[in-house]
Amino acid sequence: MNDTALEQLKYPIGPFECPSPITENHIKEWISVLEKFPIRFEVLVKYLTKEQLDTRYRPDGWTIRQVVHHVSDSHHHSYTRFKWALTEDKPVIKAYNEADWAELHDSKNDPIQMSLEHIKAVHYKLVNLLKGLTDEDLNKSFIHPETNSEVLLSYNIGNYAWHSNHHYAHIENLLKRKGWI
Amino acid sequence: MNDTALEQLKYPIGPFECPSPITENHIKEWISVLEKFPIRFEVLVKYLTKEQLDTRYRPDGWTIRQVVHHVSDSHHHSYTRFKWALTEDKPVIKAYNEADWAELHDSKNDPIQMSLEHIKAVHYKLVNLLKGLTDEDLNKSFIHPETNSEVLLSYNIGNYAWHSNHHYAHIENLLKRKGWI
Amino acid sequence: MNDTALEQLKYPIGPFECPSPITENHIKEWISVLEKFPIRFEVLVKYLTKEQLDTRYRPDGWTIRQVVHHVSDSHHHSYTRFKWALTEDKPVIKAYNEADWAELHDSKNDPIQMSLEHIKAVHYKLVNLLKGLTDEDLNKSFIHPETNSEVLLSYNIGNYAWHSNHHYAHIENLLKRKGWI
Amino acid sequence: MNDTALEQLKYPIGPFECPSPITENHIKEWISVLEKFPIRFEVLVKYLTKEQLDTRYRPDGWTIRQVVHHVSDSHHHSYTRFKWALTEDKPVIKAYNEADWAELHDSKNDPIQMSLEHIKAVHYKLVNLLKGLTDEDLNKSFIHPETNSEVLLSYNIGNYAWHSNHHYAHIENLLKRKGWI
Repeated sequence: MNDTALEQLKYPIGPFECPSPITENHIKEWISVLEKFPIRFEVLVKYLTKEQLDTRYRPDGWTIRQVVHHVSDSHHHSYTRFKWALTEDKPVIKAYNEADWAELHDSKNDPIQMSLEHIKAVHYKLVNLLKGLTDEDLNKSFIHPETNSEVLLSYNIGNYAWHSNHHYAHIENLLKRKGWI
Repeated sequence: MNDTALEQLKYPIGPFECPSPITENHIKEWISVLEKFPIRFEVLVKYLTKEQLDTRYRPDGWTIRQVVHHVSDSHHHSYTRFKWALTEDKPVIKAYNEADWAELHDSKNDPIQMSLEHIKAVHYKLVNLLKGLTDEDLNKSFIHPETNSEVLLSYNIGNYAWHSNHHYAHIENLLKRKGWI
Repeated sequence: MNDTALEQLKYPIGPFECPSPITENHIKEWISVLEKFPIRFEVLVKYLTKEQLDTRYRPDGWTIRQVVHHVSDSHHHSYTRFKWALTEDKPVIKAYNEADWAELHDSKNDPIQMSLEHIKAVHYKLVNLLKGLTDEDLNKSFIHPETNSEVLLSYNIGNYAWHSNHHYAHIENLLKRKGWI
Repeated sequence: MNDTALEQLKYPIGPFECPSPITENHIKEWISVLEKFPIRFEVLVKYLTKEQLDTRYRPDGWTIRQVVHHVSDSHHHSYTRFKWALTEDKPVIKAYNEADWAELHDSKNDPIQMSLEHIKAVHYKLVNLLKGLTDEDLNKSFIHPETNSEVLLSYNIGNYAWHSNHHYAHIENLLKRKGWI
């Protein structure tokens, strides 16, 4: 597999490219993506067999099962970061080692249904939170400790809408290549 | 209201007193408390009216609504702390300002159902995780930045079983005093 | 066991005694019982072990598992009867052989969770329906083929509120006698 | 609109054509359709607006909202008919006036979420029941009073798999024609 092919497997919808400026319409559209994602995702993966769930979405990549649990972990942290930024002044968040979390016993072996329920609940709370943010809130930010970059909440909404679609595409493309859908 | 009466309102089941040593049976019992809590809690609060939900459980305390959203916030963080401790070496966690979180628009005003669903999902994942921990895992720990204290995971399981019952008692006692149950 | 003791096991809250006349307040109270029943019932039985679920609530009676599936069956029919009566003129309903239904493979052996979810969904729809009935609707009726009796919808609301509490008491009393709660 | 066009709107996937003989594979495939239908259906309709839900899928046809509530009603009856046939000898079932049910206040006006939850619960129980049927069970039947026809349970499984896809197609085709998906 050459680099371009691998890149295509890794970034099936490309990286997140943030529009500038971010308009009210962008925010609305992203929140709508976050709102609809949990059941779109559930319908994609719910009836896969154990063997299908344990198939890697690319060489050396995570299995579908790990991707599902990862989305649950990642959006769990995302929720926390939004609320930290709303209650502190440009807090340095604490990141997590996503590769190590994906190797824990539950991420590797356990039923995806619990993470599908979790994603529903977290998105429900997150979307409810985001719909009530003021312009001032949207301009609040947090600092990511690894890059020292400041992340605006408005940007972060787009980033997690993208992240939802990004992992959806990993799995959907695998299912298509395998002829499973 | 005198200090004792206030203390009784604040700590209806007393503070968490950790047994020493912590046995396998303690762990099992605590996990069972965590497993059963979400629907016990749901049945306690689900059919309260808006007015009841917006009643403080003690003078200057949170409303029932805020308590429900707080339990959701708090156990959300707890889940993260367990996994940080399992994937890093005695990490310093990042705490959250629980009083400020409880003043955000959703905690003060929004439906509790979303937090009840969230508590179910988070406890489901947490209980599944805890049931798979080895003795070595249970001896892992994290550092709380405010006190610099090292918190063992075995201790933390008991602490969140207590925390569940602690807030349950806040609400149950209020409902009894008011003659609502 | 003497007859009185057996009668007490069979009818722990007594038979349904319908008030006369049925007032608006009765209807409201009964609908409230129907609304709250599903999660009260869930919290009562959800964490019972397989052995507990397969224990008879009285000599020669159903097991807890069969009682749960029976409530699901029975209220399923109840929903249908309300709607038949609303869309036909005093229809003769078709009853069901509850003893035989309780002997089918799912009622005897299968997880209660599916019936708990079903009871939630059916009560949710039923309560929503009942809240929208007019006085004229409440005076509609159906005919039960076994007794040829005419059953008013207003009466039937009370009857199913009673039926909910009746089976709840069967199980709760067993759990108490066994020292399981 | 000519007759062919109307027929296409009414029967977008054609009528149910039962294979003869019905093999084990047909049964398996149909049960799989019934198992996957509830969340496929949910994802199709869950985020439609009030205006979209109140749009007719064809001239003089039901609105999307009515179709969703109808599927819930219809499969509710279907569940009952399977169990009647398993516990009685070729019972004459009691049908329901589907047009009148669709005009009740809840079918016309009320949130679809309650019927989506209901469809999930009923299909869950139905699929569990069907997976445990023996060949002898599959050859049991009921009599439909309007046509006096005898309906084999094996046939009925296929019929409701078709019925699921039939109404799914009504809505999906409308959404496509309107450019809503």
